[in-house]
Amino acid sequence: MKRIYMDYSATTPVDKEVINEMTPYFDKYFGNPSSIHSYGREAYEAIEKSRSKIAGILNADADEIIFTSGGTESDNLGIMGVAYLNKDKRNSKGNNIITSTIEHPAVLETCKHLEKQGFNIKYLPVDNYGLIRNEDLEEAISKDTFLITIMYANNEIGTIEPINEIGRIANKYDVLFHTDGVQAVCKTPIDVEKSNIDLLSISSHKIYGPKGVGALYIKKGVKIHPLTYGGGHEKGLRSSTYNTPGIIGLGKACELGKSRLKKDMSHLKNLRDKLIKNTLKIESSYLNGHPTKRLVNNAHFCFEATEGESLNLMLDEKGIASATGSACSSKKLQASHVLTAIGLNPEKAHGSLRLTLGRGNTEQDVKYVAKVLPEVVNNLRKLSPLWNR
Amino acid sequence: MKRIYMDYSATTPVDKEVINEMTPYFDKYFGNPSSIHSYGREAYEAIEKSRSKIAGILNADADEIIFTSGGTESDNLGIMGVAYLNKDKRNSKGNNIITSTIEHPAVLETCKHLEKQGFNIKYLPVDNYGLIRNEDLEEAISKDTFLITIMYANNEIGTIEPINEIGRIANKYDVLFHTDGVQAVCKTPIDVEKSNIDLLSISSHKIYGPKGVGALYIKKGVKIHPLTYGGGHEKGLRSSTYNTPGIIGLGKACELGKSRLKKDMSHLKNLRDKLIKNTLKIESSYLNGHPTKRLVNNAHFCFEATEGESLNLMLDEKGIASATGSACSSKKLQASHVLTAIGLNPEKAHGSLRLTLGRGNTEQDVKYVAKVLPEVVNNLRKLSPLWNR
Repeated sequence: MKRIYMDYSATTPVDKEVINEMTPYFDKYFGNPSSIHSYGREAYEAIEKSRSKIAGILNADADEIIFTSGGTESDNLGIMGVAYLNKDKRNSKGNNIITSTIEHPAVLETCKHLEKQGFNIKYLPVDNYGLIRNEDLEEAISKDTFLITIMYANNEIGTIEPINEIGRIANKYDVLFHTDGVQAVCKTPIDVEKSNIDLLSISSHKIYGPKGVGALYIKKGVKIHPLTYGGGHEKGLRSSTYNTPGIIGLGKACELGKSRLKKDMSHLKNLRDKLIKNTLKIESSYLNGHPTKRLVNNAHFCFEATEGESLNLMLDEKGIASATGSACSSKKLQASHVLTAIGLNPEKAHGSLRLTLGRGNTEQDVKYVAKVLPEVVNNLRKLSPLWNR
Repeated sequence: MKRIYMDYSATTPVDKEVINEMTPYFDKYFGNPSSIHSYGREAYEAIEKSRSKIAGILNADADEIIFTSGGTESDNLGIMGVAYLNKDKRNSKGNNIITSTIEHPAVLETCKHLEKQGFNIKYLPVDNYGLIRNEDLEEAISKDTFLITIMYANNEIGTIEPINEIGRIANKYDVLFHTDGVQAVCKTPIDVEKSNIDLLSISSHKIYGPKGVGALYIKKGVKIHPLTYGGGHEKGLRSSTYNTPGIIGLGKACELGKSRLKKDMSHLKNLRDKLIKNTLKIESSYLNGHPTKRLVNNAHFCFEATEGESLNLMLDEKGIASATGSACSSKKLQASHVLTAIGLNPEKAHGSLRLTLGRGNTEQDVKYVAKVLPEVVNNLRKLSPLWNR
């Protein structure tokens, strides 16, 4: 059976060029980059080159990048790192953090944890498209606000937040701005300087790099507290033996992502628009997220009187890999917090389907989905007591 | 020039069999293990098999293993995880932790951080061999002690601590026992049940697995607090997309390490003993650590009137990769805290050399070192004002 992968926002296969670049670092250039002998030095030099490549995709400097184990750690380190340092400082600005109701759990659960530690978190609502409103943000800022953490683009419905505006407001009120860039990197041009971003989280496995590695951009001059302690790597902010192959892989993935950005974006947008157009022909189907302010690879739908997990499983039987919302919540039964936040009632939210495209997808894939998806939806509806037509 | 790697305690090359096992998970079986479609399920199943293999090397159960990004994170999570949970509990036992003065920075710096958080840390001294004394441990335990964290084997001088005795004492006083097993795993038989170990840290890249992955053994029934927050992976203890290739690699490394343990140990011990015998022929040279209670692959020396970093660099010029102490402190100038703890004065401690053997080393390598090392030591001594013979 033909297998079509349309869950690129959950994870991506590692690009062949990335694999080729990483491979020698497993057993040829395997030295510990902290060692002073030649094995160590050759690994260290490769890591520093990789740091530049990662910075390159954000218009940042190499020394503004630190390596982590992935997007979740980057979010945790960025947010808690700023929060704990702020708490330690004698002239701390207060204890307010502003975030949104539709963040990834890596941000939302971190904020909930900080709430238990005595921080005050304001959760901004979003409109029906998933966009925060600038006026809500400005109103939420008080003299006690030290951090805004709002995602660049949503992982479920693909909405791209008004990042430049958020950066402008953060700058105006002298508040730090962290953004979870996990879904946005390599899918939209990012310029941390232009957008006034102070901290940005990157995950490697979402951009055709290996799993188990990520990065955190920290603007020059911004100080954070470490979350873990040890040998003092990364200026003491993230102790751990460098994951050389992973870091080399992430660097190569960023280099490729930068050089292919225009080509990738136009390829994905073309497929996405066809996918959306075809799918909305299905009776009682709706697109979630913003029609234009959305990731080029994201299509997210609701189908009345269906159930998302059943949609996934039946599509899987037809060879199509899809998701309801995010991968990490895929085994949970609650309605998505994102869909609830954009105003969907639980029944509608349950009948949701996320199709996320990637470099491997073709026009044929989109055509195959256009053929299979209506059948699958119809078959499910036949079984549903909620479908009376 | 012939290159001889004798820094296996800093890191190891990834075994060919491990690479072969990992490779398909980069781009063939690349699904997110949390996804419910077939790509996700095949990755999930592989991960669970790997969990069993890791458990196998410790005589643990698969559900007692959680995955981390490496040894440092495992140590941090094990120690802070127990400490923060203990702090949260209403009937907490108190706030005392016992450790030793010769721990790896991942343990020592974590303890120092906890000290700032109000925990009371007792640092046990060690004897001239680097061994803690059971009577010191027993004396240090009070009704407020909830955790003992003492390393299985030291990363610099190779001394193996009296783990069974520590476990017995911890058990007697109903105190949890965490051990940093990073250097011991695959170099000595480990049985967490027999040794009464509650938590044990593993690093993959020290045992011919990939960098960027590790594991923490947590005995059934022992509860810890997470350090990071997100999608709720690993029973909520360690949120992050699974690093499938890394986890598969660590599993294979453990499987190989278990099946080769006897062979590896006898090979390494034979080479190590020759290396020590040859080296001690050098005038005013001393072996650090215990003569027999030491890792089979570790040889650690002091040479009067020399300086460790110069030894490393001159050996590197002759093609031999060595270390002074640990890799992560190799670019720092302070005398090693381990060597100070075993009673060496700073001058002696500065003239130290660690040679750590691995699967790739041969009798020829040991012979080459026996030829080169005396010359290097002599040349350095000629330049030293401290050498007047």
